[in-house]
Amino acid sequence: MTHASSQGRLTVVGLGPGNAELLTQQVRNSIASATDAFGYFPYIERLSGLEHLTLHASDNREELERARAALHLAAQGKQVLMLSSGDPGVFAMASAVFEVLEYAAPDEQLLWQAVHIEVQPGITAMLAAAARLGAPLGHDFCTINLSDNLKPAEVIERRICLAAQADFAMAFYNPCSKSRPQGFERALKVLRQECEPERLICFARNVSRPDETLNVVPLAAASAEMADMRTLVIVGNSLTRKVGPHVYTPRSYGVQARG
Amino acid sequence: MTHASSQGRLTVVGLGPGNAELLTQQVRNSIASATDAFGYFPYIERLSGLEHLTLHASDNREELERARAALHLAAQGKQVLMLSSGDPGVFAMASAVFEVLEYAAPDEQLLWQAVHIEVQPGITAMLAAAARLGAPLGHDFCTINLSDNLKPAEVIERRICLAAQADFAMAFYNPCSKSRPQGFERALKVLRQECEPERLICFARNVSRPDETLNVVPLAAASAEMADMRTLVIVGNSLTRKVGPHVYTPRSYGVQARG
Repeated sequence: MTHASSQGRLTVVGLGPGNAELLTQQVRNSIASATDAFGYFPYIERLSGLEHLTLHASDNREELERARAALHLAAQGKQVLMLSSGDPGVFAMASAVFEVLEYAAPDEQLLWQAVHIEVQPGITAMLAAAARLGAPLGHDFCTINLSDNLKPAEVIERRICLAAQADFAMAFYNPCSKSRPQGFERALKVLRQECEPERLICFARNVSRPDETLNVVPLAAASAEMADMRTLVIVGNSLTRKVGPHVYTPRSYGVQARG
Repeated sequence: MTHASSQGRLTVVGLGPGNAELLTQQVRNSIASATDAFGYFPYIERLSGLEHLTLHASDNREELERARAALHLAAQGKQVLMLSSGDPGVFAMASAVFEVLEYAAPDEQLLWQAVHIEVQPGITAMLAAAARLGAPLGHDFCTINLSDNLKPAEVIERRICLAAQADFAMAFYNPCSKSRPQGFERALKVLRQECEPERLICFARNVSRPDETLNVVPLAAASAEMADMRTLVIVGNSLTRKVGPHVYTPRSYGVQARG
């Protein structure tokens, strides 16, 4: 099946956290009707075996080049998928695509203007992790990428500090990696300054995959090596508690519980 | 099909923002194998026509009674669904279920202890809205329920203020309703104190439904009547901008753009 004569399309899709059952029907349909798929190696691997697709795998940190290549192919009339894990709009490829569009050279702008661009949501890691834990994000919360590749570490620390003062629950993406072993350690240091030692810290690793692990500890017992690059960390707010094996944050705040 | 002799199960599922294409396969499977479904009227309506299900609709603000009734039925061996729109863990039913479990009377605890409880994630409104707008949540952000049913208005205002100081993008759920017409007006007042007049405010109403509307204005032009109870509001951070019809927040912050 070729679409060379039809309008080119770039569809930025979220594959969810890993388990194929967490894909939406919308994304399944987009995969079925695409001609080409771009993405980071492990995401491309999730589509291997689909013979109607030409696969274009690339390395991490090559997001802008990948977006450019995908737009070029879509401008030729192809039906192009850009793969993200989780949701494409949360620390993933959607923002990179729009960044490339904004800084396009005049010849690229001319080429790309006919491409239809669509973003299709997915289950982002914090929602999958929260569901497995219980309901730790059941009240106001914030979402912070702990990677300092694209922002200063001081900005991250300031945000954690203000979030603690606002008593948000917090979801941390990319808590650390081999190139940034100290990322989560710095976050823990801020949390220890701002929060009580009983504050619940949840570590969800490889959520929805066969080797998923969940670990919930009080802040006083949390340590940096509990998180790696495959871990999503959720910090409770001051009211987050356990009921049996479940962690949840009450809906009410600063008013009498209605239990 | 009856499951009266099998283990009772309460599965708290997210139906996504409205369009059936945004359901996950996991939730579809759970709907197919359930015996009973509990939920707020309009969510129950989305399952009408499924003859294998006994439907138990109830009104808004009856979340705790609904959770109790669902647990009672599951304790009798039924396969019970608890319906949420969006994601059940984000301002929805999951937290209410765990609240009821925590405050269960001794006889209820005894009855309910054999029930298997599972939360299954869904596409929450802010992810669907962000995808339709572009990528406004592409950098650190926070998520605030503007309803003051379950928390003081002062807490909400303080959180918006601190979130602005952290330069988070913000997603506002339940910006206002007939009983709280002033909710979003108060939020706008805080934003006007903390943010520049050019800050982008995005209104996404009935996202993913046939009557979806999107509206993006600078803070200076935003007004309270632009949001109603079916609107999800996204406030950009200080770097959020438009590229063509799309709104996006750059991945980089406080470092040189890599365009």
